[in-house]
Amino acid sequence: MKLIDYMQEKKAEIEVVLDQVLPKSGIRPSILHESMRYSTLGGGKRLRAILAMAACEAVGGDPKQAHGLAAALEMIHAYSLVHDDLPCMDDDDLRRGKPTNHKVYGESVAVLAGDGLLTEAFAELARMPEKFNVSHEITVRIISEVAFSSGSQGMVGGQVEDILSMGEGSNDADQLEFIHTHKTGALFRASLRCGAILGQASSNELNKITEYADSFGLAFQITDDILDETGEAASLGKAVGVDERLGKLTYPRIYGLEKSKEMASACVARCHQALRGFSDSAWPLREMAEFIIHRDH
Amino acid sequence: MKLIDYMQEKKAEIEVVLDQVLPKSGIRPSILHESMRYSTLGGGKRLRAILAMAACEAVGGDPKQAHGLAAALEMIHAYSLVHDDLPCMDDDDLRRGKPTNHKVYGESVAVLAGDGLLTEAFAELARMPEKFNVSHEITVRIISEVAFSSGSQGMVGGQVEDILSMGEGSNDADQLEFIHTHKTGALFRASLRCGAILGQASSNELNKITEYADSFGLAFQITDDILDETGEAASLGKAVGVDERLGKLTYPRIYGLEKSKEMASACVARCHQALRGFSDSAWPLREMAEFIIHRDH
Repeated sequence: MKLIDYMQEKKAEIEVVLDQVLPKSGIRPSILHESMRYSTLGGGKRLRAILAMAACEAVGGDPKQAHGLAAALEMIHAYSLVHDDLPCMDDDDLRRGKPTNHKVYGESVAVLAGDGLLTEAFAELARMPEKFNVSHEITVRIISEVAFSSGSQGMVGGQVEDILSMGEGSNDADQLEFIHTHKTGALFRASLRCGAILGQASSNELNKITEYADSFGLAFQITDDILDETGEAASLGKAVGVDERLGKLTYPRIYGLEKSKEMASACVARCHQALRGFSDSAWPLREMAEFIIHRDH
Repeated sequence: MKLIDYMQEKKAEIEVVLDQVLPKSGIRPSILHESMRYSTLGGGKRLRAILAMAACEAVGGDPKQAHGLAAALEMIHAYSLVHDDLPCMDDDDLRRGKPTNHKVYGESVAVLAGDGLLTEAFAELARMPEKFNVSHEITVRIISEVAFSSGSQGMVGGQVEDILSMGEGSNDADQLEFIHTHKTGALFRASLRCGAILGQASSNELNKITEYADSFGLAFQITDDILDETGEAASLGKAVGVDERLGKLTYPRIYGLEKSKEMASACVARCHQALRGFSDSAWPLREMAEFIIHRDH
């Protein structure tokens, strides 16, 4: 199987799960559920979901057992985008090629749709014992990891520092690293670690998956920053040059384009090294590390 | 013991727990953790926390075992107030006698502080096995209840309908009931039910606690609406007449003041009836039903 087919298959699976998990738009209040579905369904690479399933598979688990986790991760990712796009944050009009949530539903519904998605993510994680036969103990452990990684000392904290950095014109490499490891890195890490925990990873396997996750996350972010400078709006599905307009800290801004590309390649090498002791079932993770720096969106 | 002393004691306990649970303001990003602490500590009646502990006690449990649950409920309540006060929602400047979160920290930090508090609430619930010796199974059940009651089919859904009702001048009693049972009722219900579940309530006891919760929540909301019309800003710690200014649906607006007061009294009677088979350890719940309609804030 080719990676592109693997990713397509997993993406299709998670779209079905998300459609089932998200409250139908007929349920009151309709506008809220429509808005939650608008920003979660029908778009996105589903990287976090695919990584969770691939990590589960890499340690010998059944990736279908990670469907609830994968849906929760995608809802958390979607909520973070809805809130990041708000006028008081990045003030973006376009996301995944469509108008942003607040442009369609208004600012107050967008804030509440984000709140609803975040809450629904934990509701879905708490359904894992009943729906996917996950033990209560592992369920609680996963809820802990997901909450920590997406909270004030994880993703939300990274977003705050990102906003504080805007327009400052600062060139602080430490702050850039804090932003990246928290804003995007933490949820990638939780996706991979929780997938591995579901697959009953040994503690050595879990450490290796964590090393992979940290290098993968960094490669992703560097490439994201490069694409914001060099990419095409049409393939990205969002405006380019946004980081520069907002005066954001980025890898190209601090290290230059060439050095940034080298750093991303070094991350991919570290991803491969982390997976050296893994069986062939880790092939999607191996190939995704290459994919992530060669994508155009 | 008098109710006022009981409530004071439990309030003091929960303040200590919240202070321990919330990340210290020295932790990066400082402004975020300051903002989360600002809106959670040092104010509020702590009704949800006290109800959870009192329900645990009423069915024979140890109320201290509900400390984690109580802290989580107060964080969820605090997050909902921070988001409700935002310019795109109720646009309030004053809360618990202090400037609202976005007035102090700005709108973007206020949105993210709310997100952080909501996430931290689930992190704290997931710590119940380790900190309070709660079984993993009960922990997952409580996370489910709390997530459902505070999500898009609970509190968040109620807030959406509340906003939709503003300025409409509608007199729709069904919509008013939907708003109340979702926006405030659902979290009261979860507080009482989850406290009882922690205290190992029988299924009959849990049903009775649920009946109590629904009448208590309604009495609370009717009284809140009455106070917004007749109360003093100084004792309420927030502006009065806000509902009318925003054209909100309220009980006095639909039923008039006298009939609203009668409805609240009928709720209190139903609260007492629900607790008829309970032992003397339910005395705080019994007295809180009276307290809730006779308060001035």
